[in-house]
Amino acid sequence: MPDSFVIGIDVGGQSSKLGVVDSGGTILAQCVISSLQADLDSYIGDLTDAVRMLTEQVKEKGSVRGIGIGAPNANYYSGTIEYAPNLKWSYIGGKPSIVPFAQLISDKVGIPVTITNDANAAAMGEMAYGVARNLRNFIMITLGTGVGSGIVVDGRLVYGHDGFAGELGHTCAVRDGRLCNCGLRGCLETYASAIGVARTAREMLANDKRDSLLRRLGAEKISSKDVYDAAKQGDELSLEIFRYTGTLLGNAFADFVKFSSPEAFVIFGGLSKSREFFHDALMKAMNDNLMTVWKNRIKVLYSSLKESDAAILGASAMAL
Amino acid sequence: MPDSFVIGIDVGGQSSKLGVVDSGGTILAQCVISSLQADLDSYIGDLTDAVRMLTEQVKEKGSVRGIGIGAPNANYYSGTIEYAPNLKWSYIGGKPSIVPFAQLISDKVGIPVTITNDANAAAMGEMAYGVARNLRNFIMITLGTGVGSGIVVDGRLVYGHDGFAGELGHTCAVRDGRLCNCGLRGCLETYASAIGVARTAREMLANDKRDSLLRRLGAEKISSKDVYDAAKQGDELSLEIFRYTGTLLGNAFADFVKFSSPEAFVIFGGLSKSREFFHDALMKAMNDNLMTVWKNRIKVLYSSLKESDAAILGASAMAL
Repeated sequence: MPDSFVIGIDVGGQSSKLGVVDSGGTILAQCVISSLQADLDSYIGDLTDAVRMLTEQVKEKGSVRGIGIGAPNANYYSGTIEYAPNLKWSYIGGKPSIVPFAQLISDKVGIPVTITNDANAAAMGEMAYGVARNLRNFIMITLGTGVGSGIVVDGRLVYGHDGFAGELGHTCAVRDGRLCNCGLRGCLETYASAIGVARTAREMLANDKRDSLLRRLGAEKISSKDVYDAAKQGDELSLEIFRYTGTLLGNAFADFVKFSSPEAFVIFGGLSKSREFFHDALMKAMNDNLMTVWKNRIKVLYSSLKESDAAILGASAMAL
Repeated sequence: MPDSFVIGIDVGGQSSKLGVVDSGGTILAQCVISSLQADLDSYIGDLTDAVRMLTEQVKEKGSVRGIGIGAPNANYYSGTIEYAPNLKWSYIGGKPSIVPFAQLISDKVGIPVTITNDANAAAMGEMAYGVARNLRNFIMITLGTGVGSGIVVDGRLVYGHDGFAGELGHTCAVRDGRLCNCGLRGCLETYASAIGVARTAREMLANDKRDSLLRRLGAEKISSKDVYDAAKQGDELSLEIFRYTGTLLGNAFADFVKFSSPEAFVIFGGLSKSREFFHDALMKAMNDNLMTVWKNRIKVLYSSLKESDAAILGASAMAL
C-alpha cells in the first residue's frame, strides 16, 4: 500500500526550506528556495513549483496529503501572514500587509495547508518527533535572533481568541528596560536572545572595569557567538553575561509556570548552544521564584532534533 | 418530567455555602454550615447532612445529578484539597495535609463530585451564567483578600500538568518587592488584593507628606474599605493608592495577554467595588504594555453575578 506523507515548509526571512516527511519523522526529500523575492506572485510561484517537484520525487513511495507551514506572524485561524516586516513579498505599497498565505498555496497545489508561527511549529515538532513526545503540558521557547514561544496545554497548542497567543518573548523582563523592536520596553527578547546577549555584553563592557577578551573586539560588532567563544576560554565577564541571561530567563520561566503549570520547558535555537553557561543560573532563578508546590519539579529540556531538520519537521507536524 | 439539578458548594475558611441550582442558574434552595470544625469527620458529616437536606427539599421538582465544589488549594485531577492553611479540619498532626475531599463526599452521598479552586469555579460560573457566556478565551481574576485566577482557553479551564495552573496572583509584579504569604517576594497579590491596597496605604502614608483623611485612622488598622471610603470623598492620596493598584494590575494583565491572548479579563471579588478608582489606570497600563496587535482590543469586564450567589453558581457550574 502506498504511504502517505506531509510536506513541512519553514518560511524564513532569507530562505524557505521544504521537506517531504514520513509518519516516522524521516525527511525523504527536501529543497530550499529564496525568500527574498519582492513580488508575492513570483514567491508563491517558486514555492508551489518546489512543492510539485517534491511531490513528484516521492510519488513512487506514496502521496502527499497535507502541507504544514511555519512562518513569522502567521495566524493559525485565518491562514494569513500578518504584517511581517522581514518578508518583502508581503508588502503592499511599501508596508507589510496581510497575505492569505494558506489559501494561495492550497489553491495552486490542491493540498490542504495549515499554517502557524515558527515557535508553535517547533512545539508541534517536539511533540511529534522530539523530547516532548510524552508531554501534554509544556512550553517551547526558541532562543534565536529573538525569543519565540509555543504553549501546549493538554496536548493542544494555545492560540488564544485571535490566533496570536504565545508571545512570551514580549513579556516584561525588566520594567522600563531595553527598547524592543515591537515598541515596548524591557521585553524578555531584548535580554535573552542572541541580540540580547550582545546588548548585555556592550552594557557590561561599558559599566564594568574588568579586563575581558571581549575588549579586543569592536564593542558595536560583538555577537553572542563572540561571547560564547570568550566564555569557552574562561573569560569571567563573558561567563557573567550568560549568568545574567540565565537569571532573567529563569525569572520569566517561574512566572510562566504560574500560568499553565507545564511539566517542562523545551528550549531550541542558536543560543541554546551556550546552555552550559546559562543553564545553572536559569534553574536557580526559576526555582528561587517558584512556590513549594513547583520548586525543583519543573524540567528544562533542550531540543534533540537536528537543527537543520527541526524547522521542516515542526512545520510538517502541523499537517499531521 | 422531573428536572435535574446540581449542587454547588463554596468552601470558605469561615463558612461553607451550599445551593441547589437548576439549568438556568437559579438557586432553588441553599444553606450555610460552619467551616471552623477542627475534625475532618465532623465537618464531612455536617456537609453531607446539608447535601441530603437540600436534596430532600427539592425532590418534588427533580433530582440532584452532580456536585461541584470550589475550595482553596483544591486539585481538579486528584479531587484532593492539598495543604490548605485556612482549613483546620485538613490538618494532621498540627499541619495542613492532603484530604481526598471529593471521594469522601461522593462515598457518603452517592453523587459524583467535581472539585476545583475558587477562582476556577468562578470562571466556570461566569461562563455558564455570567458575563463570559459567549467567551471561549478569557481570564478570570478574583480580587479579594488575595488574588486568584482561572484561565479559560478554547472554552476549557487550564489545569496544567498537575492541576495547579492559574496562580497569576503569585506572578512577580515588583522584582524583590513585598514579602508574600507564599514565601516569594513581589507577588501581584501583595499589591492588588484588599490586603495589598492596605499595605500600599501604609507605605504611602509613611513616605508621602500630603495630608489625607487616612491619617485620622491608625495606620496599622487601615483596610481597603477605609481607602475606598476616603477616595469616595475625593481624598487625593487614596485616589493615588487605587491608581497605583490599577497600574500594577494593568502591567500584569498585559503580560497575561501575551500568554493566552484572551478576548477579555473578568474581574470579581470585594476589591472590584473600587473599580471606579482603579479601572482607568488599569486600562492605561495594560494598553501601554501591549503590542499593536492587541492595543485597545482586550476587554476588561466585571462580574455581573450577585456576589452572594456567585460562589455557589461557580461551584455548581463545575458539575454541569
